[in-house]
Amino acid sequence: MSADDLDGGDTHALLMEAAYHTLCDYGYADFSLRKVAAEAEKSRGLVHYHFDSKDDLLASLLDHLIREFESRFDGDGADRPIERLRAVLEWVAFGPELEGRDGDAYFTALFELRAQAPYDDELRKRLTRNYEAVRNRCADAIRTGVEDGEFEAVDPERTAAFLVSAVDGARNAELTLDADGTREAALAAIEEFVFDVLVE
Amino acid sequence: MSADDLDGGDTHALLMEAAYHTLCDYGYADFSLRKVAAEAEKSRGLVHYHFDSKDDLLASLLDHLIREFESRFDGDGADRPIERLRAVLEWVAFGPELEGRDGDAYFTALFELRAQAPYDDELRKRLTRNYEAVRNRCADAIRTGVEDGEFEAVDPERTAAFLVSAVDGARNAELTLDADGTREAALAAIEEFVFDVLVE
Repeated sequence: MSADDLDGGDTHALLMEAAYHTLCDYGYADFSLRKVAAEAEKSRGLVHYHFDSKDDLLASLLDHLIREFESRFDGDGADRPIERLRAVLEWVAFGPELEGRDGDAYFTALFELRAQAPYDDELRKRLTRNYEAVRNRCADAIRTGVEDGEFEAVDPERTAAFLVSAVDGARNAELTLDADGTREAALAAIEEFVFDVLVE
Repeated sequence: MSADDLDGGDTHALLMEAAYHTLCDYGYADFSLRKVAAEAEKSRGLVHYHFDSKDDLLASLLDHLIREFESRFDGDGADRPIERLRAVLEWVAFGPELEGRDGDAYFTALFELRAQAPYDDELRKRLTRNYEAVRNRCADAIRTGVEDGEFEAVDPERTAAFLVSAVDGARNAELTLDADGTREAALAAIEEFVFDVLVE
């Protein structure tokens, strides 16, 4: 059940923030309703009243984060397509930096969640939706650029898949391996190889 | 301890193959010395004699796989740099396909291992070494291409980091999310944006 059905958004927003902090601080393996309750300074009973399980709470958190992502970029329609594209890729590289936790902590936890996704249909559907939201933002910016004549006539979907993959792969290399500087390398190479070609 | 110290390479090779099958079939979470013994049709005692723990065996397996990777590409010196580069990226996309298991099963298990790497120094060091072997192969091919005048004068390290990140990210999207076709999109975009520019 959703907290919004019960007492408006305040408790829901509070629990989402606490869940985000808990996920960033402890990772997926040690994430629990008990820790979220402690982080929110609420009773375990309250958290259990709103969420049936750890997975239920994580699902709500993923939905919450994608709404946050969408609203962050909803106002960018007036920006040039290349700036919109850069802003989304910057987000993929360095993350939300929400509520006092840096993006690396979030993406490290997200990597753990993704490792469960092949075995968990519900989780995979949600993570896919979030991934598609990011890819679609990039594809939309590229499509606008092509339609406006600002970009070369590239395939928006394919180019978006490529760019998001490159930044996603570079970030995950840095967060899970000893590979400092890979994000900077990927972003610089994107300027060199893709944006220089893309922008006529 | 290594099996090679004890009875030549035969038992070691047999256990590596069994460990590879077990990792591909069960993933990291359900990997165990008991399952490897069953797969190898050997006693648990024999496996324990050669390997102290699950982590010890996985470490040997990762070392074994990187030697396999190196030997696969060691004979490619006569190929054109662009072909060497394509072959390594194809390997990153579709994997080793070793001993009757497809690359997707291997890379899905590897994703789980990487999710543990931020919390396990030894594992991270080994996975980093394997990752660097792949990146260095790409960088070497690019450097040779630049030196021979076949490629534009791009930065070999940066370009390699970018290309490996793109294919790694695309493959992991396909294996952990519902994102079919992302690898093909990334490889096609690499031809379009990078190789078309690279090859003079």
